[in-house]
Formats: sequence, structure tokens, C-alpha cells
Amino acid sequence: MIRPVRVAVAGSTGYIGMQCVSMLARHPHVEVTRVLGRSHAGERHCDVVPGSEVALRIDADLDADSVDCVFAALPHTVAAAHAKGWLSRGATVIDLSADFRQRDRDAYERWYGASHPAPDLLDEAVYGLVEFQRDRLSSADLIAVPGCYPTAALLACAPALRAGLVEDEVVVDAKSGVSGAGRSPALTSHFAEVNESVTAYALGGHRHKPEMTEQLRHLTRRDVQLTFVPHLVPMTRGILATAYLRRRDGVAHADVESEYTSFASQNPFVRWCSEPPSTKSVSGTNQAAVHAGGQDRITVVTVAIDNLVKGAAGQAVQAMNLRFGFDERAGLDRGPLWP
Amino acid sequence: MIRPVRVAVAGSTGYIGMQCVSMLARHPHVEVTRVLGRSHAGERHCDVVPGSEVALRIDADLDADSVDCVFAALPHTVAAAHAKGWLSRGATVIDLSADFRQRDRDAYERWYGASHPAPDLLDEAVYGLVEFQRDRLSSADLIAVPGCYPTAALLACAPALRAGLVEDEVVVDAKSGVSGAGRSPALTSHFAEVNESVTAYALGGHRHKPEMTEQLRHLTRRDVQLTFVPHLVPMTRGILATAYLRRRDGVAHADVESEYTSFASQNPFVRWCSEPPSTKSVSGTNQAAVHAGGQDRITVVTVAIDNLVKGAAGQAVQAMNLRFGFDERAGLDRGPLWP
Amino acid sequence: MIRPVRVAVAGSTGYIGMQCVSMLARHPHVEVTRVLGRSHAGERHCDVVPGSEVALRIDADLDADSVDCVFAALPHTVAAAHAKGWLSRGATVIDLSADFRQRDRDAYERWYGASHPAPDLLDEAVYGLVEFQRDRLSSADLIAVPGCYPTAALLACAPALRAGLVEDEVVVDAKSGVSGAGRSPALTSHFAEVNESVTAYALGGHRHKPEMTEQLRHLTRRDVQLTFVPHLVPMTRGILATAYLRRRDGVAHADVESEYTSFASQNPFVRWCSEPPSTKSVSGTNQAAVHAGGQDRITVVTVAIDNLVKGAAGQAVQAMNLRFGFDERAGLDRGPLWP
Amino acid sequence: MIRPVRVAVAGSTGYIGMQCVSMLARHPHVEVTRVLGRSHAGERHCDVVPGSEVALRIDADLDADSVDCVFAALPHTVAAAHAKGWLSRGATVIDLSADFRQRDRDAYERWYGASHPAPDLLDEAVYGLVEFQRDRLSSADLIAVPGCYPTAALLACAPALRAGLVEDEVVVDAKSGVSGAGRSPALTSHFAEVNESVTAYALGGHRHKPEMTEQLRHLTRRDVQLTFVPHLVPMTRGILATAYLRRRDGVAHADVESEYTSFASQNPFVRWCSEPPSTKSVSGTNQAAVHAGGQDRITVVTVAIDNLVKGAAGQAVQAMNLRFGFDERAGLDRGPLWP
Repeated sequence: MIRPVRVAVAGSTGYIGMQCVSMLARHPHVEVTRVLGRSHAGERHCDVVPGSEVALRIDADLDADSVDCVFAALPHTVAAAHAKGWLSRGATVIDLSADFRQRDRDAYERWYGASHPAPDLLDEAVYGLVEFQRDRLSSADLIAVPGCYPTAALLACAPALRAGLVEDEVVVDAKSGVSGAGRSPALTSHFAEVNESVTAYALGGHRHKPEMTEQLRHLTRRDVQLTFVPHLVPMTRGILATAYLRRRDGVAHADVESEYTSFASQNPFVRWCSEPPSTKSVSGTNQAAVHAGGQDRITVVTVAIDNLVKGAAGQAVQAMNLRFGFDERAGLDRGPLWP
Repeated sequence: MIRPVRVAVAGSTGYIGMQCVSMLARHPHVEVTRVLGRSHAGERHCDVVPGSEVALRIDADLDADSVDCVFAALPHTVAAAHAKGWLSRGATVIDLSADFRQRDRDAYERWYGASHPAPDLLDEAVYGLVEFQRDRLSSADLIAVPGCYPTAALLACAPALRAGLVEDEVVVDAKSGVSGAGRSPALTSHFAEVNESVTAYALGGHRHKPEMTEQLRHLTRRDVQLTFVPHLVPMTRGILATAYLRRRDGVAHADVESEYTSFASQNPFVRWCSEPPSTKSVSGTNQAAVHAGGQDRITVVTVAIDNLVKGAAGQAVQAMNLRFGFDERAGLDRGPLWP
Repeated sequence: MIRPVRVAVAGSTGYIGMQCVSMLARHPHVEVTRVLGRSHAGERHCDVVPGSEVALRIDADLDADSVDCVFAALPHTVAAAHAKGWLSRGATVIDLSADFRQRDRDAYERWYGASHPAPDLLDEAVYGLVEFQRDRLSSADLIAVPGCYPTAALLACAPALRAGLVEDEVVVDAKSGVSGAGRSPALTSHFAEVNESVTAYALGGHRHKPEMTEQLRHLTRRDVQLTFVPHLVPMTRGILATAYLRRRDGVAHADVESEYTSFASQNPFVRWCSEPPSTKSVSGTNQAAVHAGGQDRITVVTVAIDNLVKGAAGQAVQAMNLRFGFDERAGLDRGPLWP
Repeated sequence: MIRPVRVAVAGSTGYIGMQCVSMLARHPHVEVTRVLGRSHAGERHCDVVPGSEVALRIDADLDADSVDCVFAALPHTVAAAHAKGWLSRGATVIDLSADFRQRDRDAYERWYGASHPAPDLLDEAVYGLVEFQRDRLSSADLIAVPGCYPTAALLACAPALRAGLVEDEVVVDAKSGVSGAGRSPALTSHFAEVNESVTAYALGGHRHKPEMTEQLRHLTRRDVQLTFVPHLVPMTRGILATAYLRRRDGVAHADVESEYTSFASQNPFVRWCSEPPSTKSVSGTNQAAVHAGGQDRITVVTVAIDNLVKGAAGQAVQAMNLRFGFDERAGLDRGPLWP
């Protein structure tokens, strides 16, 4: 029996942080030893977070000597300011914020309106979209967990783009549940305002877009013109990405479909579906459910994920599993509730 | 004081039919004299339809001599079988089914899997998307009210296409509430199956697509390649259409935007919005709320309508107003509930 | 043609205030001349409130000389501080806060944790539950519009109690939509927290309870032991009150039912239903839908209202109609949307 | 390592049956060897049930020799007709229908409108509300799993009644999600009809009431007058029972509260909450979350359960654990998703 990985979760009372705690607390090779959070410091986690079964006191600050791995679910710039310290104490840092997702520091600073607190770490960070970065994760000390939108969008369009089957101009129309906006109350998450309604936002470009285009360039070695529009849908969890991919001359829809079935067969958390998947069918799970349908010259790929699991905490655990040499699926076997 | 138009509503206990009854019962120039419906014949409308204030007995069949206008909210092929009879008795027929929406009889029969009961009426029917057909409606005896998806999709992309501002290959990603599937219970409208979920369907092509492409050809005199994918969203009412329009060389986003603000200023039920509209903001109203945003070379137009009002009953009333010489807005002044 | 009543709405950007503006703007005998609100002063109402068609600029303060009637939809203590000034300028004040709902100043100060700003007006105020106070409203200068819970609860149990048909110990279990908590964002109105959930609150007693017991004493001349528990339900609008009434010896369920059908026949906005009503069937309307069912010695009365209409703005308009000599139903004829 | 219990699930494609399959497939001491269902016979379970990971073919009929235990999630009368045969082959039968829940055959036949197919088994069946029947379950061959409403209602009021702390006249107001009505599509589970709405039903008495009164008599040795009214709430899962209990003279609220905290400490799936619990906080879990609050002479107890888990499949697994000598908690450790 090996010693379990001692893990701290920073930002443990936000939606992503509490999902991390919940998953890590049931992970067979992990011991959650520290939970952090400024607003509830001193209280027990289970008294603050509904459904939590973790009785640890919440700390305001972390003594990184005591842990092997830090899951940082903090607002942007906050984790970056701490990362170097944590790394220097020997902890692996798995960051769920936007801070280390892109190498392009200028784009970061433009979209997030802040100077980057640790630009020298940008080159070191490994982008943790496991399905495309499996090899590099086993030795990564700083892992940048992708955003929920990029996870769904990249899984939807990158396989076909990487294989050169479709043109380099793609549209991704994404639909997200309300938990994606976080737990801080706002008019845009007020039940009476968002229930019975769907709306688009960020038509001119979303913060996550540069992250996506950088990854597409990395994966395809070409410049891909991505049009990305997110929508808010009245549900708690889930993202559905609908990608419109124009096939290159001579490429049949079956060729594209075949690329995705092959991709699914190589990745334990990518599930090929014979019908367009619903977000509910993956709710609470780490799965990305994928389907592709042909409409004239366009192949339409839809990907459904749980934004807080495969789009955040679950993907972080999946990356940690690779980093620490566990089965990629360890602690991630929870199935969906249906209905 | 002129004599009110005597109106019958066939299919008065389905979602579209009951919305027609509700709106017509409050219309200042209309008297609802007959309500029809096979499954509840003999009962009073207000005893069968929640919220109905119409106490008429529901009839199984219509004596068309007694009415000036028939609103037919019936399954496809049913209205078409009656239309000639009703027309011959002098009634104006406003058909809310798919039967007379397209001239292409072959496409109809292929998509609906039935031979058309009245093909000789296809040329006579006027497509009732008022914003594009205002002139022809004043003398139309047979009006085909557009489907809910085509209404939203055409309002989103036809203005820019007609003006030649964008390329003839467009993507429309549409999101609909559950009432669009009608009142007959099915697993796909079961609360426990659709709540907390979003899913795409009909990726290979939706029944409404030939109707849209025919109209786009009619409006632009060109062949437009439309990719159309509908999605089911967990809300009762509303459609949001998101259209991705690639601007032609030399066309600025502001040019496209200007086309839509101009379009809105000419049409009382098209409302230009400075932000992307939500479906809730038009719920219960006959408005189409429109916004356009530029993302690189793409202009993204979003249109929000209430699928049962502007997408069905309201548009039918709007067409009737033109046919009978009333103010286009008569009986259609209801505002949304917010929240 | 008489001069319309000039009305100001204070607190016009909260849920109750915006509902007042919406209803008053369509009232045939009213002109909305002023809308007030500190947080959006200077902006146009229609630019701030989704769905609003009122283009007036929002003012921070009111010159009461210019209006005949003030609808005050303000936090408790705020309206009370202004009421005397408005009354002295000759305006009728229709207050939608808790400030003037009960004569028992001590109970007010205990539950609301604030000293009452205008205790000398308490005797003057008329409690505006129209169905029980119709006579006094025609001459009232200061009208206290009941809370949403008291409206539903009193309509459910007061008829039987007043007629002496049931015992003086009653239970009312009430279920409310989320808009009842107001528009200010909070964790308890966050979509992701309240969706897919129902919970009870204020088991030890709710702020509205003293208002209810005072009214029951007033209507019955006896002390009624009321147990009242509110619940939060994942919907935007609506309150359902379920009252458990133990019949006195010798009283049949039919006697109680008869009391309610009679009550409904005397009140245009009380609608007797042969089946238990749903909140959706009255959404957007000023109706209180009532049903009574017998289960052994208990008669169970359920009342459904729209908390923002019959439970607030609609009831306020109904009271204004009586005060200014209009038909009680003026401006209140909107039917529900179904589905 | 002991041989796992071989289990068959009859009715495996309904909501309760699929929940059984999902939980049993992850149970450490169980092997699901057969899944049954007439409507999908021949198909694989995972192809028919969203989220299912069980690839077994669905059979139409069961050869009971091959299994140790049958979970029967069938319409009433169907399981009863098979039970004797299954028992005679040596299988333990855990029935989730109403067939064996009450000894009073007359009440059964009156409420379910059918003659009982196996009245001679009524005395043999053990009522599987584990918290009150733990001793008898270890030797039970035929276990009747309580209905979802009785589970919540009995957990809410039986502890205080059994201890003689409250009067024998109680009101239970229950609120259920839509999945409680099963998977067969109906107007009463149509999204567009039930969303944004709450309604009471069965005011005159619900089918589950005789089951509850029989159990209360069994537990208290007295006749308890129960008034029970169920309500439909727009959510998928969950039941909240609110019990109104009038304390006997001399009994303090703290005495009642103490009875429930003690009850919780003795039962691993009863969780005492310091605040009124929400149904969401137990969604997907086998927990019954309990709170009690005092309002004058009434103690209000609220109990939240997941209707498909603690109210059906989870409780069945819990009973099976006792029957086969496993830890009561085996296979039941899933926590809730929040949000």
C-alpha cells in the first residue's frame, strides 16, 4: 500500500473548489489534508458546503510543506501569485484558473485586465486537456486545467482539424448551465432572471477564445479561424458545444465520423454516441459524450460535458492521476443520475 | 362601428390553437364564434384549457358558412384536406400547419411522409412572414403561417442576405423551449427527461429546412447554403436563433448592423436591442428582438421570439390584421412578464 | 372623459415596482407620470427594466405635488418616512411594504428590527385586502397592500373562520416562487442553489405571521392560533397556500365548500375551481384560484395566486380602483399564459 | 471472498428500476445477472437507459433459479402475481410496488381497484422501512419497500408519535418532484404543463395514506388521525415532507427535537440538520435529512429525501444489505452533487 497523495484544495467553497473536494475525498489514492478559503476560515467544510462530508476546518493560508499537491480553484491572478512559493516547497500545482492556460501573456493581460503575477512560469505550465497532452502530464509540476468552454469546444473540433479533414474556419456555438458563472450572487445568476430564458453573450469574443485558438494552433500547426459564441441556458450544470465543420474537398462525413470514433476508443472519458448527447446524460461524470452528424458539406459535432467535472474538477483529477502514476480513471468512476 | 370578424379556431386545445383562442378572444375587432377539437368535443373550452376564459362549447366539425376566417392549428395534412371547402364557403383560411408553407410539393411529401391533400392550392397560398410579405397579405385568402424555427431563422439571416452583405453560406443554431413539440405527451417532453439538459437534434436536416431555403431563394434570388441545427432547451416558451453570417469583402460589421436597425425601424414587431436579447424578454409577446455583434469576419445575429406567439398564433393574428385591413398591431399589444 | 389619475411609482426597478409600472402603464384611467429609484436615477425605465415600455427617466426623489397617487414599492421603513409628506401634499399613498400592515407597532418593531418612522399613521392606514375591506377603501388615503403570503393565506382560511365553520387552530403551509425574495442577488436566489430543490424556512415564525393573526382577529373577533410555514419552490412566480381547517362538530365539508363558492361569486378576482388550482394557471393575473377538498374531519383549502400581481402590484391597482371610483377590474383583465 | 449475491431487476427500464440497476451495478457484494423489461426485451440495457453502464440484454421473463434476489419494480399487481413462483425457487423478493405494503387487503383493493393476486403472502411480507424494522429484515424473504411518500412522512412523524410526545392528530404536507409519477409520458408530467407551477392533488386522500396509517398504528399501538396532502413541484427528484405535530401538555419543543437527534444518531441514513434541509442536499443519496422547529405549540418536522433513492431503490438496497448480512451502508455511499 503506497502512501496516499496529500492534497490541499484552495478556494474550497466555490463551485469548482467544492467539486474538487467532493471528488478528491472519495479518491482511493488521495488524502485531502487541507481545505482553504478566506470567507469561511475557521469553519468546518461540511458546515459551509451543502452535501460536503469533509469535516476539516477551513484554513485561510496554506503551509505548502505539508502537501504533495495543491488544487487551486481561485480567481485569476490569485493562484499565480502563490504558485511559485508552492512549487518551491515541492508541491505539484494544479491550477483551475485562467492564469497558466495560455503562453500569450499579452492576450492574458488584455482579456483579464491585469498584469500577470508570474510570467516566468508560463513556459513551464502544461495545458491539462488530457486527451491531447497525456504524455507531457506525467512529469508536469504546474498543470493548467482548461476552462470549461475550451474543453468542450476543443474536444468538438480539434480531432477533425488536427487530421486535416475540415477547413480552418470553424464555428462553435456553446450552451452552458448557470453554475459556470460561479457561486457569487449576481443578477445574471438570479433564478427569476435566468429561468425560462436563453440568451447569447460575448458575441464579440469571449475570454476563453485566445486559449482555444492558441491550443488549435498548437495542435494543428496552422492558424484556425474560430468563431465562438457562448449562451446561458436555464440549467445548473452542463455545457453543450455544437461545432460546425466544413469538410475539405473529397472528405466524406464518414471520414470525419471515423476520426471521432477512433478518438473515443483511445480515450477512456470520451464516449462516442450514436445519437446527439444530452448534457444530462453526463451530469456528475467526467465523460465527454460526442456525436457527429452530416448536413450537406458540414459535419456537425456536438460534445456534452459537465462543466464542473470534465470542465474543471474531474479533468484536474484526471491530470493528477497521470502526474502521480495512477490509473487515469482512479476516483472518476461516478455515473450520471438519470433522470 | 364595423362588424367584428367572426373567427373559428380549429385545433383549439393544442398549444398553438389555445394561444390563438386566447389572443383572438381579446382582439378588439374579432369575435371568436367557434372553437373546434375532436378530443374534447362537447365540453366548454374554459373547462378543458387551463386559463381559458372562453366558454364556447367545442365542436367536432365546422360549418364554414358561419365564419369569416378560420385559424387552423391542426396536424399536417388535416387542414389541407379541409381548406378547399372552407375557402369555397368564402372563409379566409389562416393555416398554422406545414401544409402550405412551401411550393415544393416533393420536398413536402419527402419530409412529411404523406401525399399532399390539396396540391392545387399551393400556388395560391401566401407565406405569412409579415415582415417580408406585407404587400401580398392584404388580398390573401389562404395564408400559410411560418413555422417557429423559420420565423426566427429568417428574421436573423434574411435581411443581411437580401442586401447582399454576407456570403451565401450561413449557419443558424437554434434553441427552442419544450412547448414547440406540442401538447401530446412524449418522452421527449417529459419533465424528468428534459429538465436540467440541453441537446441537439435533427443534425442531418430538420423538416423546416426546405421551407427556409425556399424562402431564402425567394427573397435573395440566389441559392443559399443553409446549415440549420435545432436544440431543445429546458424552458417552456421561446426560440433563440443564432445566425453566423460571413461578411463579404469590404463589408463592415457596422454595415450589417445598420441593415438590421433599419429593418427594425420599418417593422413594428421587430425590436432592435443594444445587447443580445433573452427569450424571456419577449415571452408572451409578438416581438422579435434582434441584436448583431461582430466577431472578426463574422457577424453574429441573434433573434429571440416566443415560439407560440411570433412563431405561431401572434404571427397569424398579425397576418389576419393585414388581410382584414386592421392596424397591424391590433390585439397584439401584450408586453412580457418580467421576471 | 375624466382626467387620468397621475401616478408615481417609487422603487420602480424592483420586482414589485416594475410590476406596478407595467400594470399602471396599461391602465385605462391612469397616467404614469413619475418613476423613482435611487440605483438607476437618470436612466430611462425601459433601458433598465427588461420588457418595460415606459420611456420616462427615473428620478431619485418625488415632488408629490405633481401626482395624485404614489405606489411605494420600497424596503420597510423607507416609505413610512416619506408617507406623511406625500399625504400632506394631497397624494393618496398605496404602500406595498410592511410598514402599515399592522396596528401592533411592537410586533412590527420586533420582527423588522427597526423603530417605526411614522407610528401616528398606523391608525389611519387601511389594510388593502380588497375582498375583506372593500367598503373602507373608497375613502382611504393611506392603503397598506398586504404581503404576498398573507394574501394567499387569508383568502384560504378567513372565509371559513369568519363564518365559524372551523376551529380556531389552523395550519397554513405555503409554497412560494423565488421572485418573492426580491431582485437583490443572494445565495438563496442563485439559480444553481435553488433549482431542483424545495425547502422550508422560518419554521419558528415568519415576519408576515403577526400581520395574518391581526387580520384574523379583526375578521373573526376571536384569537386564531395560526401555524404558518413558508417554503421556497424552484419557480419564478406564484404562491400556493394549503390551509388545513378542522371543521367544528356538525359542520359538513359541503358547508365549508359552499362558503367558498359564495365568497368567489361575490368577488371578481376570486375564482372557484373544481380541481386544486396550479400557480401557473394564475401566473400574470390578479386572480386568486380557490379549491376546497374534504379529508376526514379536515377541509383542505388551496389558494393559488401570482405573488407579484394579486400578491402585490395587482392588489394595489385593485385597491386604487376602489379608491378612485373605477371599476374594480380596470386595468386588471390580463389572462394567464398557458403553457 | 464470498460469492456475490446474484440479483435480477424486473422493470429495469422505469425510473425506479433503472435506479436499482445503477446502484446494484456498483454494489461491492452484488452481481447484476439479469435485467427484465417487456417493452425493450432483446436490447441492451445501456442502449435503452441513458447513463446506464450495464450491457446486459433485457429479458422478457425471469428464470428465478438463476438468482438469489429479485428487485421487482413493476406496476401494482404484476409483481404479486410472480412473487410466489420466485419465492418457491428460493429467491428473496424485494418488491417496490404497493402490493405487499399493507396487510389490509380491503384497503388495497379499494385504492388500487384490483383484486390482490397473492393475498396469502400478505402476512409474510416485511415492511422495509429499515429505520423501524431493522430486526425483522435479516430473515425476511419477501420485503415490501415503502412508497416514497410514506418513507418521508413516517420518518417525519413516527418518532414523535411513537414516543408519545405529540397528539394523535397530525398533518403532513408533502412536496414531490415529477419523477415520482414514473416514466410513462402524461400531461401531468409534460414539461410545459408542470414547469413554473406547483399544485396540490388527492386532497380527499392519496393511495399511500392507508399504508401510512397502518404503519402508524403498528408503531404506536394507537389510531393516529393523519391528514396527508401531496403536491407536485417543478423539479425532477426529491420529496420534502412537512409534518405539523401538536405537542402534548407538558412536552417542550426541545423534548421532541431530542427524540429526533437521538433517532438520527441510531440510524446511518438519517441525518439531523440544524437548519431545514433542502431536497437538493440529498439528491442522489440514500439520506433522510431531518430538522425540527418549534412554532408555539406545534413542532414542525421537515424531512428531505430523494424519492428514487431513499424513497425507492436505495431503501431496497439498504433492506437487501440487512437481509444478506452486509453492512447496512454497502453500496450506498454516494454523496450529493452540489450545486
